[in-house]
Amino acid sequence: MTLNHLGEEDHRHLASLVAADRYATGESVLRTHSRDQSRHRAGKPEVVIFPDTKEEIAAILRYANERRLPVTGWGAGSSLEGNPIPVCGGIVLSFARMNRILNIREEDFQIDVQPGVIYKEMNHALRHTGLFFPPDPGAAATIGGMIANNASGTRTVRYGSTKDYVQRLTMVLAGGEIIEVGNRAAKSSSGYDLVHLFVGSEGMLGIVAEATLRLAAIQEEMAWAVANFPTVTDAAQAVMYIIRSGIDPAAVELMASECIELMNRFKNFNLAPAPTLFIEMHGPTKRHLAECTQIVEEISREEGCLEFRQGLDRAERDRLIEARHGLAELIQQAHPEQSRIVIDVAVPAASYTEMLLFARELAQREEEITAYTFGHAGDGNIHLVVGTRRDNHAGWRAIDTLNQRVVHRALALGGTATGEHGVGIGKRQFMAAEHGASLEWMKKIKTLFDPNGILNPGKMFPE
Amino acid sequence: MTLNHLGEEDHRHLASLVAADRYATGESVLRTHSRDQSRHRAGKPEVVIFPDTKEEIAAILRYANERRLPVTGWGAGSSLEGNPIPVCGGIVLSFARMNRILNIREEDFQIDVQPGVIYKEMNHALRHTGLFFPPDPGAAATIGGMIANNASGTRTVRYGSTKDYVQRLTMVLAGGEIIEVGNRAAKSSSGYDLVHLFVGSEGMLGIVAEATLRLAAIQEEMAWAVANFPTVTDAAQAVMYIIRSGIDPAAVELMASECIELMNRFKNFNLAPAPTLFIEMHGPTKRHLAECTQIVEEISREEGCLEFRQGLDRAERDRLIEARHGLAELIQQAHPEQSRIVIDVAVPAASYTEMLLFARELAQREEEITAYTFGHAGDGNIHLVVGTRRDNHAGWRAIDTLNQRVVHRALALGGTATGEHGVGIGKRQFMAAEHGASLEWMKKIKTLFDPNGILNPGKMFPE
Repeated sequence: MTLNHLGEEDHRHLASLVAADRYATGESVLRTHSRDQSRHRAGKPEVVIFPDTKEEIAAILRYANERRLPVTGWGAGSSLEGNPIPVCGGIVLSFARMNRILNIREEDFQIDVQPGVIYKEMNHALRHTGLFFPPDPGAAATIGGMIANNASGTRTVRYGSTKDYVQRLTMVLAGGEIIEVGNRAAKSSSGYDLVHLFVGSEGMLGIVAEATLRLAAIQEEMAWAVANFPTVTDAAQAVMYIIRSGIDPAAVELMASECIELMNRFKNFNLAPAPTLFIEMHGPTKRHLAECTQIVEEISREEGCLEFRQGLDRAERDRLIEARHGLAELIQQAHPEQSRIVIDVAVPAASYTEMLLFARELAQREEEITAYTFGHAGDGNIHLVVGTRRDNHAGWRAIDTLNQRVVHRALALGGTATGEHGVGIGKRQFMAAEHGASLEWMKKIKTLFDPNGILNPGKMFPE
Repeated sequence: MTLNHLGEEDHRHLASLVAADRYATGESVLRTHSRDQSRHRAGKPEVVIFPDTKEEIAAILRYANERRLPVTGWGAGSSLEGNPIPVCGGIVLSFARMNRILNIREEDFQIDVQPGVIYKEMNHALRHTGLFFPPDPGAAATIGGMIANNASGTRTVRYGSTKDYVQRLTMVLAGGEIIEVGNRAAKSSSGYDLVHLFVGSEGMLGIVAEATLRLAAIQEEMAWAVANFPTVTDAAQAVMYIIRSGIDPAAVELMASECIELMNRFKNFNLAPAPTLFIEMHGPTKRHLAECTQIVEEISREEGCLEFRQGLDRAERDRLIEARHGLAELIQQAHPEQSRIVIDVAVPAASYTEMLLFARELAQREEEITAYTFGHAGDGNIHLVVGTRRDNHAGWRAIDTLNQRVVHRALALGGTATGEHGVGIGKRQFMAAEHGASLEWMKKIKTLFDPNGILNPGKMFPE
């Protein structure tokens, strides 16, 4: 399938579809939309269009499909696997102008939004309703991007991923057709589940023009605790027992000692430099959370916990979670000469300790690279940030080998190559190993929905 | 697409693929597999095959696909929309022999099962682990059937539907290809979500040969309460406020007074014949549940509750839930001369009262029919069982009109034509209204996976 570059006539026609200030070909705009937060090679679009309605999206796609022009959706550019990089050039559709909350239906626990809404801003707008949208990837991600990548984060252990909160989607398909999938009922057994087919499809099967999201009730009370341990093994074991205890924590984050050291150094924390768990609990009463905290403490002590701090207040919690979410930036600050990748595997609960040790030991053996381990431990999700100097070829070879070995071990343990960052460019190489024969069926579905391959080309499938 | 009937040569070949005692053409076996629990017209298969392995399923499908022979999967036959009725004859694949629990992985909160496992037996086998599979449709359904219909039930309000518990599937496709979809990690953003595409596809895209299910931790404590109200409106309003209170009940079942009367009459209950809510709560401590119960009582009293009974014990609860699950049979006992359909719509929470009243008022206007209303109120799911004498043509016309009007009202309210019973034969007529243009995409997906249309023909899509 050959895709075309935009000619003069293409620019003329496409520019006629939207207001002049929403058709951008200036160098700085193109550059801003040429890379995400990853180190994957930039790919510059030929135009960035800011549609305002689903009809505009449809008109753009209809034309692009006829002319075989690449179209890549763009939310906030906060992804980590090159997911929205327009590797074939062409059109970037930015949803920066489609960022309206359309309807908050409190009594249905639902909200209708455009794809460009930033989830944090949405939760801020919901603050007086007692409801919230739980998936929490940390970055200033847009709802459209979160749907495209099935984003998750710190609260997924209790509340699930983005896929668990999408009720209904308005999709614009490659040929410009607009369809609605899903409905607003709390449950349904009606027809094939097209909603979940689009969630996590990385903008390759269609473009989200509107979404109805399910919301969760904010529990009355929250409690936070921090526990540190002699070794990551001890911490990981504690995680397993905390999950098995049935107390249903809202977050269980693990940070290895090197992460804590960064937080002390750059964020003025004063934490013991040891493997640390951060545990968040949500519940209806203070008493209930006190009981949960006691269970967490008992388990932690049994696993050799050095220090257990409970009763953190909201400000301390926010500061801690912000630092946790900002670890990638702290690592950048600590090693400005380096570039890096984030390994993002997830494994079944019982294999978490094994996976963690395997990855860390491999990484520690390599002198050319630095490695930081943290993760949404309650989900079996491990992030290993491994970096080296940009020009250190031996280092990059070591990183590549490490990445390969960690991912293949995760797959051997029944896990996945990507817990939450999506496939994008970086994880394409593992798709055949992870999905086997079903990868061919994904390709067939791609061809069914996008026969000319215009939507986010160059992603997900191995070359 | 023309499908064939089995010739002598077909029987000879197919019989050679399995042991003799697993190839059944006797009249009584064929008859047993010719209808489900609904009144949809029986369709007799030409053979019932009891495969034992995925390879056997693959060999049968490969041959059936070449010869254009219909193949319909069969679990327990407990469905309510004609979902597994072999309307074109051909082969029924019964999973009665593939009923083994393959592996309980307690520490991963997971279980590997064959499709013929009865979910109640599976939960019984899990009783010492502290884990359970929450979806609870009531009948002796098999896991394979529950996956095919995305079954749910009393506990869905808190725990979700079958789709929320399927991690991984081994699927046999129409051409005989065996693929694995999904993985065992608690979360993943890897590739298109084929697991959810198969869940709820009613055996039309492939046959489930094995499943890995997620399990939930049994909460330490449970509590039950029964509240009755002057009117169904009062009861429905109470439901809305209970859900909004954030106490996260495990079940909120509504039974209109006519249902209570049946339970008194046939099951020796001694309940006041008034609209009644049954509320189940799960939590970590007795104290917590006492607090939840108090909130439920306060809300109920505010909505005019006549009597609020709490502190039911497990035996009372089991008896009540069994009677609730058995309402269809009680209705049959009360009206042995009748036949009936179950209307199964779901609407967004805030529209529940309106939907309930609309359906009941319409039904009460019809003298030719009897109607019983109950439902998983916490999910916005309404069951309206409407019956009349088999030979009452005016009655059946009234039922048909009622069904049409109730479903179209549910759709107008943003709901669905089928909350949990699936489409099968009975809900095909509503698919175009519910799904609009996306129905064509479902058909395209069907054609992609099953180009010859051999898998469960005559279902889901309007004729």
